[in-house]
Amino acid sequence: MRIGELAERTGVPAATIKYYLREHLLQAGAHGEGNTVEYGPEHVHRLTLIRALSETAGLSVAQIGEVLTVLARHPESAFQALGATLAATHRDPTFSLASEGTTEAAERTVDQLLNEYGWAEVAPPMYRDALVTALTAFYRLGNPDPQEVLGHYADAAAALASADMEAIAEATKIEGVDVEQAVTATVLGETVFAALRRIAHIAASARTQASQGPSGTI
Amino acid sequence: MRIGELAERTGVPAATIKYYLREHLLQAGAHGEGNTVEYGPEHVHRLTLIRALSETAGLSVAQIGEVLTVLARHPESAFQALGATLAATHRDPTFSLASEGTTEAAERTVDQLLNEYGWAEVAPPMYRDALVTALTAFYRLGNPDPQEVLGHYADAAAALASADMEAIAEATKIEGVDVEQAVTATVLGETVFAALRRIAHIAASARTQASQGPSGTI
Repeated sequence: MRIGELAERTGVPAATIKYYLREHLLQAGAHGEGNTVEYGPEHVHRLTLIRALSETAGLSVAQIGEVLTVLARHPESAFQALGATLAATHRDPTFSLASEGTTEAAERTVDQLLNEYGWAEVAPPMYRDALVTALTAFYRLGNPDPQEVLGHYADAAAALASADMEAIAEATKIEGVDVEQAVTATVLGETVFAALRRIAHIAASARTQASQGPSGTI
Repeated sequence: MRIGELAERTGVPAATIKYYLREHLLQAGAHGEGNTVEYGPEHVHRLTLIRALSETAGLSVAQIGEVLTVLARHPESAFQALGATLAATHRDPTFSLASEGTTEAAERTVDQLLNEYGWAEVAPPMYRDALVTALTAFYRLGNPDPQEVLGHYADAAAALASADMEAIAEATKIEGVDVEQAVTATVLGETVFAALRRIAHIAASARTQASQGPSGTI
């Protein structure tokens, strides 16, 4: 198909397709008759993947490029590709609080937690630092010790990770499902979980309000 | 204290403090002797709060303004404030996939899930739409039915929400901890959980790789 049809079938404007071609996110088409360029199902698939990563998972063009590179480099191991993707897609916030010194209490709490869950060895420094920074802000605002909540958070994170690993292991056993799909599903999973978490909060908050409200009902 | 000392104590540059004053994120100081303006502990606290929301939770100045408005409006109910804050801080992605029609399968799966967990009534349309969009992308990429993983996600979301509600209920019973702190802690919690989830994934992925790798070890 020509670029016009590719644009129509994927919902990506032709100008954007040309941009992705220039940025090497999208593989080049084949030269057809005369001066035409032909695109096939692999282009439709790649554009669907790019849209999912960009629109649903919120990644930048540079981050999508990194994910695609990782996928091309590790076509044999879903778990290797996943690890590399998670590192590539980390949205690096400007944790400038950290540069001014985090509190010792925050450092201690985070290291204790990571040790307890057996994560200390594998946790990338940027995630550990993100935790220390968030906890420092938490303490500075005068909040009480969050030990118990942190345990609940870590339990939930471990449960999600196991569920994702099982799903990837299952999916890659099914014919036609490849590493790329399995990894993308996990990235999309972050968006899905964030939405579910907001909904669960709103529901729990409405319930608690109803049971504690002055009139007993909302 | 004068603006210079306020800047030093909070790590926020004087120019940024002036910007926050103009945007009404920070309350005005008191007029001191001569033409001076004096700031107090309430300004230090507010700046710490703004930094936490901006740097750790990644909110924009406009979103911080909304959170502060919500907190000023609902000083009596932590749960009301929390619900309003979650709505105000939703980072609205450009879900343009949705505008081109999501698949019926995705709609059905999402509605079934929300019904099952008793969330259908309270789920704001934007979160339901986010779920449908993510699932549509998931199906379009040729992935198998995610029913089981979705259940695990929903269970984890419900567990986190309960843990947060308990923590808020506990915290607001402690003298000196106010609604503002409780709500901010929940917003910071999103950052904390995101980092923990990444770490848990990397750990689980390393473990699975080790048990499945060709050599049996990494």
